[in-house]
Amino acid sequence: MGVFYGIGVGSGDPELLTLKACKTLRLLDVLITPVTAEEKESLAYNIVRDLLNHNVEVLFRRFPMSEDPAIWQESAAAVAEEIRILIGNGKNVGFVTLGDPMFYSTYVYLLQELKRRGIDAQTIPGISSVTAACSKTGVSLAEKNERIAIVPAVYAHTDIQPILDAFDTVVFMKVKGDCSSLIERLERAGMKETAVFVSRLGLDNEQIVYDLDEIRGCNVNYLSLIIARKKR
Amino acid sequence: MGVFYGIGVGSGDPELLTLKACKTLRLLDVLITPVTAEEKESLAYNIVRDLLNHNVEVLFRRFPMSEDPAIWQESAAAVAEEIRILIGNGKNVGFVTLGDPMFYSTYVYLLQELKRRGIDAQTIPGISSVTAACSKTGVSLAEKNERIAIVPAVYAHTDIQPILDAFDTVVFMKVKGDCSSLIERLERAGMKETAVFVSRLGLDNEQIVYDLDEIRGCNVNYLSLIIARKKR
Repeated sequence: MGVFYGIGVGSGDPELLTLKACKTLRLLDVLITPVTAEEKESLAYNIVRDLLNHNVEVLFRRFPMSEDPAIWQESAAAVAEEIRILIGNGKNVGFVTLGDPMFYSTYVYLLQELKRRGIDAQTIPGISSVTAACSKTGVSLAEKNERIAIVPAVYAHTDIQPILDAFDTVVFMKVKGDCSSLIERLERAGMKETAVFVSRLGLDNEQIVYDLDEIRGCNVNYLSLIIARKKR
Repeated sequence: MGVFYGIGVGSGDPELLTLKACKTLRLLDVLITPVTAEEKESLAYNIVRDLLNHNVEVLFRRFPMSEDPAIWQESAAAVAEEIRILIGNGKNVGFVTLGDPMFYSTYVYLLQELKRRGIDAQTIPGISSVTAACSKTGVSLAEKNERIAIVPAVYAHTDIQPILDAFDTVVFMKVKGDCSSLIERLERAGMKETAVFVSRLGLDNEQIVYDLDEIRGCNVNYLSLIIARKKR
């Protein structure tokens, strides 16, 4: 029997890979890397390609971007079935994910489908975009007894005032398109001045914006987040 | 002028260091490592000791455990002053922190004191205990549009019901001593069954407990956390 590894490759900068991730990549016979239907290349694969053995087989597998979990489950089930056969044939199989595998990642669907088939996974954590953004900008996520909320930006359209009230740091994930209304909410909550917008960190077209007025009305990339803090 | 680096060394397992952290450690002339008054050894130093140059100077500096920020600030100011002189003498200086430097770390006080002295820092993120615990246990922190709250366990003694209601995943940090009352709250909120307790991950005396009843009434170590999830 081979072994299955889920490998977090960090938020973009290849140097943010862990030693464990590098070591594991070299054990692989087969690497599975996710691609969306929309993008032809795999960001996760681009990060690890130079670290693989020359004889590793690379399989690009589609995980379409969709709000429907059934679609993700279907993709995950097909890949899990493929992994089952490969490790049955004694192959070590890896699956790479951008950032951390347990943090807003498709990987979790794959994990569930593997579990259903009685397959153990060894998961290797990665530096998430949030962690990397904090180090890059010098913004601390939390100190002492502070509280952190991490929410997809879509919640900015609901009543998030209780969350803004109750937490010291609020991270908005999956910021995309025009985020003017989110910026207005942060302004009203007195959290705009200390907020920072970070997009595609460690990737091409990286963007760090400290004055959120600069991105009002812009169509921002989907690999973006905003970290907002109460004034200390 | 030398350069100052703040280096996250991961949650305990030395293999969770990033390539960037390893590369940076080899650039150092001086390594500053924090110790508490209570513990004689530095956990962060133990992780990196084998990766340092032979001629590196290692300075153990005290950051006493205290609830009083003034005490931390005082320690940070003294270390910042030391760094100012060292980099003025052309030395590359590193400061290591367990986990991630921006996530509940003393490092932030140091960063503030350095800023006050006009000193730039290059901060290198690390795998936090939360991220590592999720990979180890197979518990995902968030999927799709879920919301995450991260709160120090001391809040379990206040009205945390609104937080338990509003979030899909709630991580309790700095769990220590007897956490029976927190367990009872999770039970009432229907989140006990899916919760996991993780202590000293990657360090000696590592402990992972899926049935929280097992730790009721125990005096748990301070490097512990509980990840609680709503049933999906």
